[in-house]
Amino acid sequence: MELSLPAMGEARDLNARLTKPVGSLGVLEDLGVRLAGIAGSCPPPPPEPAAVAVFAGDHGVVAQGVTPWPQEVTGQMVATFCSGGAAVNALADQVGARLVVVDVGVAGDLHPDPRLLDRKVARGTRDLAVGPAMSVEEARAAWDVGATVAGDLVAGGARLLVTGDMGIGNTTPSAALVAVLAGGRPADCTGRGTGIDDATLARKRAVVSAAVDRARPAVGPWEVLAGVGGLEIAALAGFVAAGARARVPVVVDGVVTLAAVLVAEAVEPGAVNACVAGHRSTEPAASAALEHLGLRPLLDLDLRLGEGSGACLAVPLVQAAARLLREMSTFDAAGVTEKQT
Amino acid sequence: MELSLPAMGEARDLNARLTKPVGSLGVLEDLGVRLAGIAGSCPPPPPEPAAVAVFAGDHGVVAQGVTPWPQEVTGQMVATFCSGGAAVNALADQVGARLVVVDVGVAGDLHPDPRLLDRKVARGTRDLAVGPAMSVEEARAAWDVGATVAGDLVAGGARLLVTGDMGIGNTTPSAALVAVLAGGRPADCTGRGTGIDDATLARKRAVVSAAVDRARPAVGPWEVLAGVGGLEIAALAGFVAAGARARVPVVVDGVVTLAAVLVAEAVEPGAVNACVAGHRSTEPAASAALEHLGLRPLLDLDLRLGEGSGACLAVPLVQAAARLLREMSTFDAAGVTEKQT
Repeated sequence: MELSLPAMGEARDLNARLTKPVGSLGVLEDLGVRLAGIAGSCPPPPPEPAAVAVFAGDHGVVAQGVTPWPQEVTGQMVATFCSGGAAVNALADQVGARLVVVDVGVAGDLHPDPRLLDRKVARGTRDLAVGPAMSVEEARAAWDVGATVAGDLVAGGARLLVTGDMGIGNTTPSAALVAVLAGGRPADCTGRGTGIDDATLARKRAVVSAAVDRARPAVGPWEVLAGVGGLEIAALAGFVAAGARARVPVVVDGVVTLAAVLVAEAVEPGAVNACVAGHRSTEPAASAALEHLGLRPLLDLDLRLGEGSGACLAVPLVQAAARLLREMSTFDAAGVTEKQT
Repeated sequence: MELSLPAMGEARDLNARLTKPVGSLGVLEDLGVRLAGIAGSCPPPPPEPAAVAVFAGDHGVVAQGVTPWPQEVTGQMVATFCSGGAAVNALADQVGARLVVVDVGVAGDLHPDPRLLDRKVARGTRDLAVGPAMSVEEARAAWDVGATVAGDLVAGGARLLVTGDMGIGNTTPSAALVAVLAGGRPADCTGRGTGIDDATLARKRAVVSAAVDRARPAVGPWEVLAGVGGLEIAALAGFVAAGARARVPVVVDGVVTLAAVLVAEAVEPGAVNACVAGHRSTEPAASAALEHLGLRPLLDLDLRLGEGSGACLAVPLVQAAARLLREMSTFDAAGVTEKQT
């Protein structure tokens, strides 16, 4: 997806005429210009209502002891999203966002729930420490799940898409993907995830390094994704790419979604143009991916939860950027004297 | 105002039992604990509705050529706040906040408006480059205006106070106050405000340095405030202090309010405990004040507008911090397995 240069030019001109010193709204002015470029119109349409999609999947690599959380927690947290008691529920409610939870690869069986879409491609990935996490066909199927969810949400009226993830162990494949696709050193891209001790971090680094060595010669993004990725990551990549094709802005959460954006951008160049980085997670791979993608995060609050929590928190900022362009008066209209140069 | 240690302890305990890894919500967890400490209860009450008060005043120091904006813009922007076309209008509307505009010291006459409180203490300050900006009596009268506005807003139901300022030239007294009260070098505390050129910055630095030299021997905060402050800054200090006394959190905007918080803290120690720093403005004195006050800003978006714009943008984050403590399930209640240590 290419940004509309005429709409962005119009937004820059408008920013210069609104009743404030030029540039005084900083990052929000740039964001307003970006929203105009995504929509192809100035002022950009209101990016609301928002819809949050949390994609859940399990990871065979947990067998390597890369996390202290039992795998069953993935399904338990999905149940918590459905019953409304998780962080992302509170944060999505606050911004009036619809929340859908998508089982694209949870290992166990889940109770049906109106909020839960059963789109299971497989019962978790295989252990990426000993072979490819999934087949290319599985990766493509998971991508399609994400793309379809994005399309359905937009068809249902969503004008801002928000990404979330749940998957015990999923910062390990994310680190590997970022190292391969953004070119970082595996050890530098591997962090403490939800909070692991030194011994676990050392194991995780060894696993990521070996996986990256195996994935680097891969012939293309699909092979990389299948080799060291995850089902929910593949779905998130499809979700981002479909949002971009629909020219709907996508607020990106932490390291897991950022790994997916790298995949989306490799498969469909320009997908990143629709992305707004919600926050800078504490995971080092998040910073590496943000830099590679050229995204400046809106928030930097030491978050490391996932679920879409950081992206939900950024939604009001995205909506504010559009609102300023839509609602502020110009110097002329307000009869305010301009700066004397 | 002293924070309630028992309520903060309860909030820390609750944070550790909610369905998320301990600490994974980063700064929002600390903020939730602070809100509990301000309210004296856990979970803290919802910090809503919010009310924004924009205090406006003029500054005699504009005679020194410290800004390219004509003084008449202060009154013109007040009129824009009343007609609804300024940035703070769009941002206050977005968070459902009531907006009041308070003329505590605009030089010119203003048209009456339902949103405008006429509390003029003087027609602007005198030129702080040649003598005290105001008398101590004027400073106290302006402080009382702010304190009364805060009390009235809380009596009217506001549960979150938001600060804003308007005053052409007011980053000059703010820089001087920060240099004196936070102990910075005047040149380091003086920035480009809404955007000035090198020659203007040099003049502004000379003015601030001379003012600081004159104010440093002052016998107390009232003399400092009267010597190098401003009427809207004095009102903001009273507003912050009254919010703290009412145990209502106050979201603090940029450098002008931060200068006022330094004054409030000097006059009523503990006032800063009620303050939440909305953002880090690009003005260097803002960073100096934040560090001195021990406040970590929620946003860092290169804003330099004032009006309360950065504080309004942070309101949803403050409300999210309380909402997480109020709405999330505990591991026990949700039946989620905890981390294996």
